[in-house]
Amino acid sequence: MLSFLIFLYIFEICQWLQRPLVVGHRGTAYLPELTLASQSMAHAYGADIIEIDVCLSRDNQLIVIHDIYLDGVTNVGDVFPNRSHSDGLNYVIDFDLDELRRLNIHERVRPLNGTQVYPLRFPSKSKVPFHLSTLNETIELLLGLNRATGRQRQLLIEIKKPEYHSKYNKSISSIVLATLSAYDLTRSSDPIIVQTFHIEELMYIRKNLGSQLRLFALMTWNYIQESSSDYDFYRSEDGIRNLSKIVQGLAPNHQLVVDYDLNGVIIGTTNLTKWAHQYNLNVYPYTFRQDLFSGSSFEELVKYFWHTVKVDGFITDHPDVILELLRSSETSTSSIAVLHLFLLIITFLFNYH
Amino acid sequence: MLSFLIFLYIFEICQWLQRPLVVGHRGTAYLPELTLASQSMAHAYGADIIEIDVCLSRDNQLIVIHDIYLDGVTNVGDVFPNRSHSDGLNYVIDFDLDELRRLNIHERVRPLNGTQVYPLRFPSKSKVPFHLSTLNETIELLLGLNRATGRQRQLLIEIKKPEYHSKYNKSISSIVLATLSAYDLTRSSDPIIVQTFHIEELMYIRKNLGSQLRLFALMTWNYIQESSSDYDFYRSEDGIRNLSKIVQGLAPNHQLVVDYDLNGVIIGTTNLTKWAHQYNLNVYPYTFRQDLFSGSSFEELVKYFWHTVKVDGFITDHPDVILELLRSSETSTSSIAVLHLFLLIITFLFNYH
Repeated sequence: MLSFLIFLYIFEICQWLQRPLVVGHRGTAYLPELTLASQSMAHAYGADIIEIDVCLSRDNQLIVIHDIYLDGVTNVGDVFPNRSHSDGLNYVIDFDLDELRRLNIHERVRPLNGTQVYPLRFPSKSKVPFHLSTLNETIELLLGLNRATGRQRQLLIEIKKPEYHSKYNKSISSIVLATLSAYDLTRSSDPIIVQTFHIEELMYIRKNLGSQLRLFALMTWNYIQESSSDYDFYRSEDGIRNLSKIVQGLAPNHQLVVDYDLNGVIIGTTNLTKWAHQYNLNVYPYTFRQDLFSGSSFEELVKYFWHTVKVDGFITDHPDVILELLRSSETSTSSIAVLHLFLLIITFLFNYH
Repeated sequence: MLSFLIFLYIFEICQWLQRPLVVGHRGTAYLPELTLASQSMAHAYGADIIEIDVCLSRDNQLIVIHDIYLDGVTNVGDVFPNRSHSDGLNYVIDFDLDELRRLNIHERVRPLNGTQVYPLRFPSKSKVPFHLSTLNETIELLLGLNRATGRQRQLLIEIKKPEYHSKYNKSISSIVLATLSAYDLTRSSDPIIVQTFHIEELMYIRKNLGSQLRLFALMTWNYIQESSSDYDFYRSEDGIRNLSKIVQGLAPNHQLVVDYDLNGVIIGTTNLTKWAHQYNLNVYPYTFRQDLFSGSSFEELVKYFWHTVKVDGFITDHPDVILELLRSSETSTSSIAVLHLFLLIITFLFNYH
């Protein structure tokens, strides 16, 4: 009995170590995205990796923000009333860091009408003063938290729109790598991963800039025009084989990993994960958002990606929820194992006598 | 078997609901104290209550800071080189809010020589820009996080040195209550608790200001001169009976709750908790800091306060660690229960045949 319990315990630990990784997308869903506080929450919840995005300011500072414009998450229109383009938006690249520091960050709204994108999240009209931060500050936050807690989390840095930055004669990837290098973060064993949608930029980072950091290839549909990369090719078997010489993981939209019917019901799995695993690439689909699902459908979705698709991780706004799902699922598995053993022994005893 | 498992499950839930509360002292140990990010981490870790301190600025704004001076946690000396008193310290009450907003917060250091008080915590020289916040902002953070997560945490607000503020003709308690009232936080059922070391101020808050909020009496030794209150009296049976007409809980230094020998080994329990419980007061000793203990001694300390002293909560820099201790202790209890049942049934089966 004791040896069985020990075996079960070791089995459980192994299972937990082999579970999919959980990536806190822009920190967590519970505070305005990408704020230091949101990232700190993701660290506290136990997210293995914290995902952030970086854009360049006019003075070439790496700003941690998802959009190349400021209007979705800041009060830029109030602070700088006359800096918008003809589309009504204010672009990060038009502002210096000391100007950007004067902005407050709020929960994401639609730039056109100011309504909150996820209505039940942190109130966008709250007066809590959150501010933009730089990649340097975010690295120092991660390293400081890792040191203070003794729990080693990693940073997944998305380089936003390298082609857009090129038009302004800015090599954002070079600046990202130089920033990391200043913290001696250059090796594949360091707690840093770099990703971007522009697949050719990843090749440039690996081959021309000579980075040894782990790289992930983000994937979407060509029609979205996130970059000039041909995702139709890069998610084919040939494309994935090519990518496997450059990157360590794929980060596709979850709808490129499974097929859904028109009602959002899963009807099958694409070949992407199979091919990726065939060429030793990990798969981390994005973005799992609990507040877009009702009832137990989020739980079922996560379990399908875990057990049937066998993804290597989840990029999610709700790292706490997915970690809890992974944990409770394992606990119930081992409870069932104990119950089975119990019945087995009773059967044995009855037969024996 | 099934009904036993269900019983065990319900038993476990009841046990968990009856566990001591965990109060995140100034947020958590892992980020500079009292920052919004530190409080957010405490919320994420599952602290039932987040403890903060408030002082008044020159322009009567409630600043969330532990000391009445700024030098332990901010760069005030760099930003305002000529504002210190003859003791070398810069006092919150000498600055307006818009001046205080220009300061950066760092991990706590000794004001005299700048060395970090807890050397293994977040690096005090980190460049991550944390800032002071107001009570209003902290309330909005809590309410926003409670809404976004659906998890209801509470705020424990310590009013710092009411007598000191009185000398500047400031009634800090009135301003705290007015601030809370503006958020419609006035009832004992609201997620707010107020505490202070100045016991007579608590009586003033209850009787003269007519507050219905829950109040805790902080307790220390008279020689520390934290206030003019006579703690020797207030922790006697008479004093506690008197207090029970005013407050809902006592928050004593943990050394007023148990007796230690010169080596820090617990040698017994004082009467404080017994008398408090006799008069229906809860007891929440402060401050449990894991990084002041080695090996399993912190775990043993927590278990002693939990099982032997039977405190109602822990005020701690490490809410995550104490919550994990409370959880794992219960899990192992129920594992042992299952094992016992198992052996019982086997014994029964053998005897039966």
